[in-house]
Amino acid sequence: MSCTVNHRDGYVPGIEIRTDLALEAREEVQKQTVGEIAGVDAENISEDGVNVNRVHIRNQEGSLKLGKPVGRYITLEAPGIKEKDVKVEDKLSVVLSRELQQLTGLHQNHQLSVMVVGLGNWNVTPDSLGPKVVEDLLVTRHVFELKQPQEQGMFSEGFRSVSAFSPGVMGLTGIETGEIIQSLVSRVEPDLVIAIDALAAHRLERLHTTVQITDTGVIPGSGVQNSRLGINRETLGVPVVAMGIPMVVEASTIAGEAMDALVNAFQKEGSSGGTSMAGTIKNFDWNQKRQMINEVLKPYNGEKLMVTPKEIDAFVDNISQVVAGGLNTALHPKMSETEGGKYLQ
Amino acid sequence: MSCTVNHRDGYVPGIEIRTDLALEAREEVQKQTVGEIAGVDAENISEDGVNVNRVHIRNQEGSLKLGKPVGRYITLEAPGIKEKDVKVEDKLSVVLSRELQQLTGLHQNHQLSVMVVGLGNWNVTPDSLGPKVVEDLLVTRHVFELKQPQEQGMFSEGFRSVSAFSPGVMGLTGIETGEIIQSLVSRVEPDLVIAIDALAAHRLERLHTTVQITDTGVIPGSGVQNSRLGINRETLGVPVVAMGIPMVVEASTIAGEAMDALVNAFQKEGSSGGTSMAGTIKNFDWNQKRQMINEVLKPYNGEKLMVTPKEIDAFVDNISQVVAGGLNTALHPKMSETEGGKYLQ
Amino acid sequence: MSCTVNHRDGYVPGIEIRTDLALEAREEVQKQTVGEIAGVDAENISEDGVNVNRVHIRNQEGSLKLGKPVGRYITLEAPGIKEKDVKVEDKLSVVLSRELQQLTGLHQNHQLSVMVVGLGNWNVTPDSLGPKVVEDLLVTRHVFELKQPQEQGMFSEGFRSVSAFSPGVMGLTGIETGEIIQSLVSRVEPDLVIAIDALAAHRLERLHTTVQITDTGVIPGSGVQNSRLGINRETLGVPVVAMGIPMVVEASTIAGEAMDALVNAFQKEGSSGGTSMAGTIKNFDWNQKRQMINEVLKPYNGEKLMVTPKEIDAFVDNISQVVAGGLNTALHPKMSETEGGKYLQ
Amino acid sequence: MSCTVNHRDGYVPGIEIRTDLALEAREEVQKQTVGEIAGVDAENISEDGVNVNRVHIRNQEGSLKLGKPVGRYITLEAPGIKEKDVKVEDKLSVVLSRELQQLTGLHQNHQLSVMVVGLGNWNVTPDSLGPKVVEDLLVTRHVFELKQPQEQGMFSEGFRSVSAFSPGVMGLTGIETGEIIQSLVSRVEPDLVIAIDALAAHRLERLHTTVQITDTGVIPGSGVQNSRLGINRETLGVPVVAMGIPMVVEASTIAGEAMDALVNAFQKEGSSGGTSMAGTIKNFDWNQKRQMINEVLKPYNGEKLMVTPKEIDAFVDNISQVVAGGLNTALHPKMSETEGGKYLQ
Repeated sequence: MSCTVNHRDGYVPGIEIRTDLALEAREEVQKQTVGEIAGVDAENISEDGVNVNRVHIRNQEGSLKLGKPVGRYITLEAPGIKEKDVKVEDKLSVVLSRELQQLTGLHQNHQLSVMVVGLGNWNVTPDSLGPKVVEDLLVTRHVFELKQPQEQGMFSEGFRSVSAFSPGVMGLTGIETGEIIQSLVSRVEPDLVIAIDALAAHRLERLHTTVQITDTGVIPGSGVQNSRLGINRETLGVPVVAMGIPMVVEASTIAGEAMDALVNAFQKEGSSGGTSMAGTIKNFDWNQKRQMINEVLKPYNGEKLMVTPKEIDAFVDNISQVVAGGLNTALHPKMSETEGGKYLQ
Repeated sequence: MSCTVNHRDGYVPGIEIRTDLALEAREEVQKQTVGEIAGVDAENISEDGVNVNRVHIRNQEGSLKLGKPVGRYITLEAPGIKEKDVKVEDKLSVVLSRELQQLTGLHQNHQLSVMVVGLGNWNVTPDSLGPKVVEDLLVTRHVFELKQPQEQGMFSEGFRSVSAFSPGVMGLTGIETGEIIQSLVSRVEPDLVIAIDALAAHRLERLHTTVQITDTGVIPGSGVQNSRLGINRETLGVPVVAMGIPMVVEASTIAGEAMDALVNAFQKEGSSGGTSMAGTIKNFDWNQKRQMINEVLKPYNGEKLMVTPKEIDAFVDNISQVVAGGLNTALHPKMSETEGGKYLQ
Repeated sequence: MSCTVNHRDGYVPGIEIRTDLALEAREEVQKQTVGEIAGVDAENISEDGVNVNRVHIRNQEGSLKLGKPVGRYITLEAPGIKEKDVKVEDKLSVVLSRELQQLTGLHQNHQLSVMVVGLGNWNVTPDSLGPKVVEDLLVTRHVFELKQPQEQGMFSEGFRSVSAFSPGVMGLTGIETGEIIQSLVSRVEPDLVIAIDALAAHRLERLHTTVQITDTGVIPGSGVQNSRLGINRETLGVPVVAMGIPMVVEASTIAGEAMDALVNAFQKEGSSGGTSMAGTIKNFDWNQKRQMINEVLKPYNGEKLMVTPKEIDAFVDNISQVVAGGLNTALHPKMSETEGGKYLQ
Repeated sequence: MSCTVNHRDGYVPGIEIRTDLALEAREEVQKQTVGEIAGVDAENISEDGVNVNRVHIRNQEGSLKLGKPVGRYITLEAPGIKEKDVKVEDKLSVVLSRELQQLTGLHQNHQLSVMVVGLGNWNVTPDSLGPKVVEDLLVTRHVFELKQPQEQGMFSEGFRSVSAFSPGVMGLTGIETGEIIQSLVSRVEPDLVIAIDALAAHRLERLHTTVQITDTGVIPGSGVQNSRLGINRETLGVPVVAMGIPMVVEASTIAGEAMDALVNAFQKEGSSGGTSMAGTIKNFDWNQKRQMINEVLKPYNGEKLMVTPKEIDAFVDNISQVVAGGLNTALHPKMSETEGGKYLQ
C-alpha cells in the first residue's frame, strides 16, 4: 500500500487547521476523536514554569491523522518567557539542552560532529530566528581541522566539532535551500544536522513561548511548489533534528477563528430557535469558508499575511539567545548551562 | 453646545471601523449615507499611476461623522509602489512634494524654517517609518546658525533651514512624546512642524501604497490613556502637518471583516430561507462582535496584534526613501525632484 | 587671575597627547614631572581583574597641567573584557555600579530622579555606545508620572524614576546636542543627569576595556568650534556625571607614536655616534611633527580618521550591555546586580 | 623553473608595502625602477570624473615584481563618489558595467550563467561590502530552473541566470570559505563566478573611491595560514572575476608612512649637516622599522588594527549600491543602466 501524506503546507487533514506544531495538530484532532488517536502517543510533564509535551507519531496511520511525518515531537512551553523572566529563560535553556541531548544521544558521544543550519530570511523579522541563533553559536570545526593537536588548545577537550551556517532563502540566492544544505553536508560530512526554523502556530498563546524539537527534519517554507527539497535523513543521509519556534500565526487562521466564533454563537441561538437556521449552518462548509477568507485577505494571498505582536523584533532577539544558549550547552559539555547563554551575547 | 469627539483611537463612530485614514472613514460612512455627507467635501484626481484624493472636513458635524478632526486630508494612492516600479516611485515623490507645498505654502516662502519629527519606535519594524524618513533628510539648520554667512557656503541660497529628530516612544524614554516635541519646538522655534508617522489602515490594499497628508496634526499612538498630548497647532503654537503611511491593519480588523463576510453570506441564504435566521442575525450587534473578536485575539489584546505582509522590512525601507525624497525637494528648492530621493540614500 | 583652559579637544598641554582619559593625561604628565603633580591626587586599587584608578584634579593648577576640568575621575580597567570573560564582565558591572553610587550618592537617596543621555551617532559604529546603552536601560519615569499610585504596581518600591534618550548629533538633527539636552532637562527636571559617551584614548590597550566616570560632565565631540555647549552642572543646573569608554585611538596618535619610536631609536644610536645627529633631533619640534602627521593623513584631516580593531562592532555590543547592567543596578535598588545585566538583553 | 610567489598577504616584495591594489603595487615599484617594469603593461584613461587604469601582469617576472598573480587588473577611481555626487555615482556604475562585460565577454553571450559570491563578514562594517552587494542583486536562477518556460514570464528574455550568496567567514561557520564556494559551484555549475570583496589599500585617498576588477580571482583574507583556498579558476574550474573596493588602510601602513616622513625630513637636514647622521639613517632597515611598528601597535597585532574614516558605515552602504547597480546592468541586458542601481535599493 502506498499512501501519500502531504505534510508540506502544515494543514491538519479534515479540520483545515494550519499549524507547524504536532502538539496543536494533536489537540485539534483529539477534540474530534473518541479515545486515543490511533498511532499517536502523547505525554506531558511540567517543571518550574516549563511544560514538556511529547508527541510520538508511531506509524502511517497517525501521520495521516495529524498531517505530520512519523517521528518524535517534543514541545516546550514557557509562557513566562514573554515577560522576560530570567529564571524561566534559564530553565527553558536547560530543559531544551537536556531534551535535545536525549533525542540525539549527543551526551553519550562527544565525538559526534554537528552542523547547525539556520533556516529563514534574515531580512524578514519573524523569519530571522534561524540566522540569529546561528550567529550566537560557539563554532569550533575549523579549530579541530588544524593539523597539529597542540594548536587546538582549549578546544581539545569538552568541546565538540560544530559548524554552522544560514543558507538564506531561494529568493535571495536563486538556489533551493535544500540544494545548498546537501552540497555542504556532502563536503563537511557532519554526523548530525540540527536545523533551526521559525514556525507558524494555530494558537496566539504559542507565539514566542514554545519550542518544538523533532527528529523528522523540516521542509523549508514557501517556495516553488513542486521542487521543495526536505531537510531530513532521506535527503541528507545523516540524522536531522529540527528545532522550531512559532513566530507568526497566519492571517487566515485569525479570520477562520473569527468565523468559527460567530458560527458557534449562531448555533447556540439557532438551536433554541427555528429549523431553517440550523439548516443554513449545516450547509456552510470548509470550501465556502476558505473562499470567504481568501476574499477578505485579498489583495494579498493569505499565506503571505501574518499576525504578530508589535514587539516581535524584541521577542526574536530574546528567544534566539535562549535557544543559542541551550544549543551551546547541549553541544559542548564544557560549557556550563549558565554560561552557554552568556558566552556569545 | 460642547461636543467631545474622541479622535484618539481612530474608530469611525457608529460603524466601528478602525482606520487612521480620513479617506477610508469617508468611504465607509458614505456607504451608509444617502447623498453627500454633511460637512465633508471630497474630490479625486488621477495622474500617471498616482491617485490624489482630497477630503475636507469643514466643520464639527463632519468631524463627528468621520471621527477625525476638522481639517484637510490629502491621500495619495500608488499601488504600483509595491512592485518597486521606479516610475511610480518618482511620480509619487513628485506629487507628494507638490501637495505638501500647496498645503503649507512652503513654495511661496523660502524663509520659513521647518522642523521634521519622526514619530514611532525604531525597534519595531512597522513603526520605524518616521525615524527612517528623518535619517534620509537633508538637515541644514546648524549651517544657517553659523555666525558668518560666508561659512554657510552652498546652503545660502535654494536651501531652507531644516531641523529633524525622532523623539522615540514613551516606553523607551519615560517621557511623553508630546512633551519632548514641545520642549524642542520652544527652543528651536521653527515656523512649521512636519510629523511623520506610521498609520493603521482598514483595507489591506492601502498598506505601503498610500500617503496621507493632513494639516490637523497627529496624536501619538499607544500610551497612557489620559495623558496623551496631541502634536498640533494648539499644543505647539505653530502649524503642524502630519504625513502618514499605513503600515499595519489591526488583527481585530481582519477578524471583524471575516465575521462580516460570514454574516453577509448567511443573510443571502437566510433571506430565501426561513424567518428565524433573519431574526438571529438582526439581533447580532456590535457589542457581541467586539466581544467575540476579543475572545479570538486573546491572549494578546487586539490593539497589540497587527497584520502585515512578510516583506514589511523591505516595504518600510522603500517607502521611507520615497517619502524622504519628496520631503527633501519640497523643503529645498535647489534640490531637483529626481535628486531629492537619491541625495541621501 | 583668570585662566582659560581649553579642555575641548582633549589635548594634554605641552606634550601634545590627545586623550579623553584623565588617567592617561596624568600618566604622560607624570613621566615628565619630578615628584607629584601639583593639584592632582591619584590612587589605585585592584580587585578581581578590575583595576580602579581615581584621579582627583583639585584645582586650576592641576587642571591646566592635565588639560581636564577640575573634578573627580574614576577609571575602571578590565582587560579581561576583551576575551568575553563572563566573570570579568560581571565584576566590572558590579564595580561600575558601586563607584557610580559613591560618586553621586544615589544609594543614599532613592527619591533622586535621573535622566540618562546617550551621546553620539548611532550610525557610526564606534560612536554608537551611548545610544546602545540607553536602549538597554530600565526606564520608569512614565510609570511614576501616573496619577494613581496603585497603577504604578511593582515600581512603587525599589525602583527610581529614570528617563533616557539619545539626542543624536548636530549633523543628523541640525540642533546642537547641548541645546536638545537643556530643553529636555528644563522640562523633565531630573535631579541628576548621567551622560554616556564614546571616548578617544591614547593607548591602544585601553580600547573597549576601560570605563571613565567623572563628575565634570562632558563636551560633545566634533562640531562647529565656537558654539559647542558643555553638558555639565553650569549649563544644565543639576549635577552631571559622565561615563565614557574609549572606542577609538585617533590615526594621528598612531602616526605620532611611530615617529616617537623612531626618534628614540635614533637618539640611542645618535648618542653613541656624532654630534650633528643630536643637534638634528633636538631641533625637531612638535610643530614639525604635527605638520608631518597632517601630511601623512591627508586627504582626510587627522581628526576624522580613527584606528579600531576589526571586531569593533562586537566590542560595542558587548561593553554596552555591561555598562547598561551596571547602570540598571546602580539606579534601581531592586535589581540585583546579576539581573541588572540580564534584564533587557 | 618553479617559483613560488607568496601573494597571500598583499605585500609588495622588496619595498614592504601592503596593498591589495595592483595599481598601487605598480606605482610603488615604478618609483624605484628605471624605464618600464618588465612583464607589466599599464594604461590610463580618464572619462567624466572616473579614471580607468589597466595593469596587465603578463608573466611570472611581472608577478614577482608586483607580488600579484599574472592577469588583468582594471582599477576605476572616482574621488567624487565620496561627496555623494549622483552624476559620478551613475558614471562609475556605467563604467564598471562596461569594464566587467569586456573582461568577461558577458555581453557577447547571454546564455552564460553567473554565480556572485559576497566575501567577508557581515558583522564587521568595513568587511560587509560583499554581503551587502549580494543583497542588492537581481537573482534569477530559480526562475530559470522552473520546468515550464511560460512560468518564467518576464525573465525569459533580456535576463540571465544569476545565483548569489555570501559564505561568511571561517570564524562564523567553522568551514573554510573556499570549501563552501567549491561545494556550491559543483552543485550549481555556473559558467562564471564573480567574487566581491573588501580590500586594504596603501593610500588613504583610495578608500571608498576605487574599484578593482581582476580575472585572477581572490584569496580570502585572514585565516589559518596554511590552508587558505584561493577562489580562482584553478580551484573552481570556471573563470573567476574578483571585484574589490578598498575599505581600510592597515594601521601598520599609517605607522610606516609616518616613519618614512620623518626619515625623509632627517635626510634633508642630515645631508646638509654631518656625516654620522647619514650613516645612522643608512643603517635603519626594514626589519627595524617593522619591529618598531609592531611595538607601537601592540597589544593588537598590526593586521587586526585598521584605519577608517568615521563615516565608514555610510560609505559602505553607498558604494555597495553603486556596485550592485553596475553588476545588475552588466548581468541583465534588459536592465537599463540607470535602473540597475535603483532596482533593488
